[in-house]
Amino acid sequence: MSKLYTQMSREELMSEKALLEKRYTDFKAKNLKLDMSRGKPGADQLDLSNGINTVVEDYVVDGVDYRNYGVLDGIPSCKELFAELMGVEAKNVIIGPNASLQLMFDYISQCFTHGMGSTPWCKLDKVKFLCPVPGYDRHFTICEHFGIEMINIPMNEEGPDMDAIEELVEDESVKGMFCVPRFSNPSGIVFSDAVVERIASLNPAADDFRIIWDNAYCVHALEEDAPKLLNIFDILPKYNNEDMVVEVCSTSKITFPGAGVSAIIASDNNIAMIKKRLNAQTISYDKMNQYRHVAYFKNADGILNHMKKHAKILKPKFDIVLHHLENELGSKGIASWVEPKGGYFISLDVYDGCAKRTGELCKEAGVTLTTVGATYPYGVDPHDSNIRIAPSYPPVHELDLAAELLCICVQLAVIEKLTNE
Amino acid sequence: MSKLYTQMSREELMSEKALLEKRYTDFKAKNLKLDMSRGKPGADQLDLSNGINTVVEDYVVDGVDYRNYGVLDGIPSCKELFAELMGVEAKNVIIGPNASLQLMFDYISQCFTHGMGSTPWCKLDKVKFLCPVPGYDRHFTICEHFGIEMINIPMNEEGPDMDAIEELVEDESVKGMFCVPRFSNPSGIVFSDAVVERIASLNPAADDFRIIWDNAYCVHALEEDAPKLLNIFDILPKYNNEDMVVEVCSTSKITFPGAGVSAIIASDNNIAMIKKRLNAQTISYDKMNQYRHVAYFKNADGILNHMKKHAKILKPKFDIVLHHLENELGSKGIASWVEPKGGYFISLDVYDGCAKRTGELCKEAGVTLTTVGATYPYGVDPHDSNIRIAPSYPPVHELDLAAELLCICVQLAVIEKLTNE
Repeated sequence: MSKLYTQMSREELMSEKALLEKRYTDFKAKNLKLDMSRGKPGADQLDLSNGINTVVEDYVVDGVDYRNYGVLDGIPSCKELFAELMGVEAKNVIIGPNASLQLMFDYISQCFTHGMGSTPWCKLDKVKFLCPVPGYDRHFTICEHFGIEMINIPMNEEGPDMDAIEELVEDESVKGMFCVPRFSNPSGIVFSDAVVERIASLNPAADDFRIIWDNAYCVHALEEDAPKLLNIFDILPKYNNEDMVVEVCSTSKITFPGAGVSAIIASDNNIAMIKKRLNAQTISYDKMNQYRHVAYFKNADGILNHMKKHAKILKPKFDIVLHHLENELGSKGIASWVEPKGGYFISLDVYDGCAKRTGELCKEAGVTLTTVGATYPYGVDPHDSNIRIAPSYPPVHELDLAAELLCICVQLAVIEKLTNE
Repeated sequence: MSKLYTQMSREELMSEKALLEKRYTDFKAKNLKLDMSRGKPGADQLDLSNGINTVVEDYVVDGVDYRNYGVLDGIPSCKELFAELMGVEAKNVIIGPNASLQLMFDYISQCFTHGMGSTPWCKLDKVKFLCPVPGYDRHFTICEHFGIEMINIPMNEEGPDMDAIEELVEDESVKGMFCVPRFSNPSGIVFSDAVVERIASLNPAADDFRIIWDNAYCVHALEEDAPKLLNIFDILPKYNNEDMVVEVCSTSKITFPGAGVSAIIASDNNIAMIKKRLNAQTISYDKMNQYRHVAYFKNADGILNHMKKHAKILKPKFDIVLHHLENELGSKGIASWVEPKGGYFISLDVYDGCAKRTGELCKEAGVTLTTVGATYPYGVDPHDSNIRIAPSYPPVHELDLAAELLCICVQLAVIEKLTNE
């Protein structure tokens, strides 16, 4: 059993450091160029879906030519596919563009230009959003683009801190919140049933308070027994809150990022308001691609079976990283993490004030991490402790090296910190 | 040579009417169900591009995997393709989503939420747009969605009335104008060199006045000798007006409507502002589809040759309609039209106050026209005279019937009008 770094003497730390520096120098000599920065699928994962390109021979279905104009909200079979997968009715689904990010951006944009049966947000002095942290940088980028003031909400193993949220929504300038409820980006946790229930029962001061339920990893389990997420749309009616949640999902990490199909799921009211805007924004999204997806997967089971193939590729990659973390950082009191049962990330929290330095050391030795701080609004991690690890993209042998190096860098950064204090 | 209806006696008109009513009744007996309402390509036109679905075998190009995330503004080869086609530099091109309508909507939306280096339009009391009429209903829908006040600008055979435009842009609440400069929707005319020059030289009071140059039919000629359009980006610098024009185009009517590739072309300044928004809105548009288009066409000549095949299908359809118009309505003083050399429409102007009635008569006999009035802002044609004919979608034999019936209905409507006055 290792000794806690904080209980080591200066001499013990310096001798640890010397060993680590030797290993670090050896790594640098390898001239590595490794990337653990983005949640990109590996090429082998993309190969799993190549068949989708040639699966359709005839795009005329029930007399409708999917190569031509029309069908604003998505082809019926694709709406059915997502409805089955997400446990909702097809009438509450709109099939969107190639990725769900645009659905979220466009929805927030509509809130600003038109409101949601309310005053357009652009007419208000201040719009605030609650941001569970660590979180997804692109949610923060949308908020920043629209000048939304972001308020950090700490995440725990059950989801965001609900006490804080329940208090803050009493401010009517607090208009919304982005969440990744299953296999959260980056923490990997799944919102507990209790948290989902408390979210569904919120009573915000703002009538047009909106939760963007970004279910990006809804079917992205790494293990059969990964925790399930309650379907929030089953619970919202109990609290008369149907309009409060807008869910998005996509096939970006099922088929192809950038060439997938996205969907937005919402109450009848919200769907009507979104369609009103869509009617001015587009004639239809890409129905040929929608149909390819339907023809390839056929039904929700088709997707779930496909996801097992992804898991088979991804699980060993997560295991390698977790092995190194446990092996090098376990029981030293300098880092913590949750072992994720799905999703694309491992969220590593290191000793306060050491995350940026860890990122620098990694970079110097040829390993790119997600920009440290990016998991917080405005890129500012107040504790400088969170590092998002994205194990999916590098091949296994590169990941093995990168993860080991990361662990060395964490230890070096912490020792630097402790010995300078 | 026919006599002008306005010079006929009541008895002459009534005897004409009796003949027309007989023909109309015969038509009704056929129980037709024909559609000349939308500018949709026919199935035979769509078949021309089927090869695009299977042209690419490997999506990894120069080490970049087009199946994965990234490449915000379009793959280099697709930017080059559009740059060559439109006569601009690739750095001034962004490849967009499946259709250009969304590019236009999103651009106007950005003007409202963020402005263009100017006060966001949502902060202004009044935003007005100039609308050449007859025009494209979806441009008007975008304006209406954002509460933009629309001002009719009459079109003539050279383009919009430039005297009116030059006067109106002195009002700084006039913020923009949508145009279809080549084979205008619906009039079919091509803006003359003189008009393009006058547009490029405008000196609007609003610094952020923007012309959306919707070049939807840029390569959609029906004949080899169809009039060319000046490249407005060659002229704008002379007047220091590079930022005033934002051009869009797409392959919607080159390959597949709804599954094509769009592009936005703009000055360095405008491109930078659009990219800033895109960076929050999406990770990339569909690069696989972009690459399919590049692989299929290779270069601008590839597209131009492909368009000749479209013309071969479309030209006979336009000829049938024009034949009926000339044959039935020529020299009667009750209708006028311009023979288009490209595009998707024939714009028919009938005797004032008779367009709606013509539409009703057609509908009663089983022929659907574009909703009469739709070619004007708010759906209100002040003269009730314009009918947009879309000959592309029906098969030739149906079109032959529909065009003949339309001509009968025009004559009946005019006689009704003249004999009731």
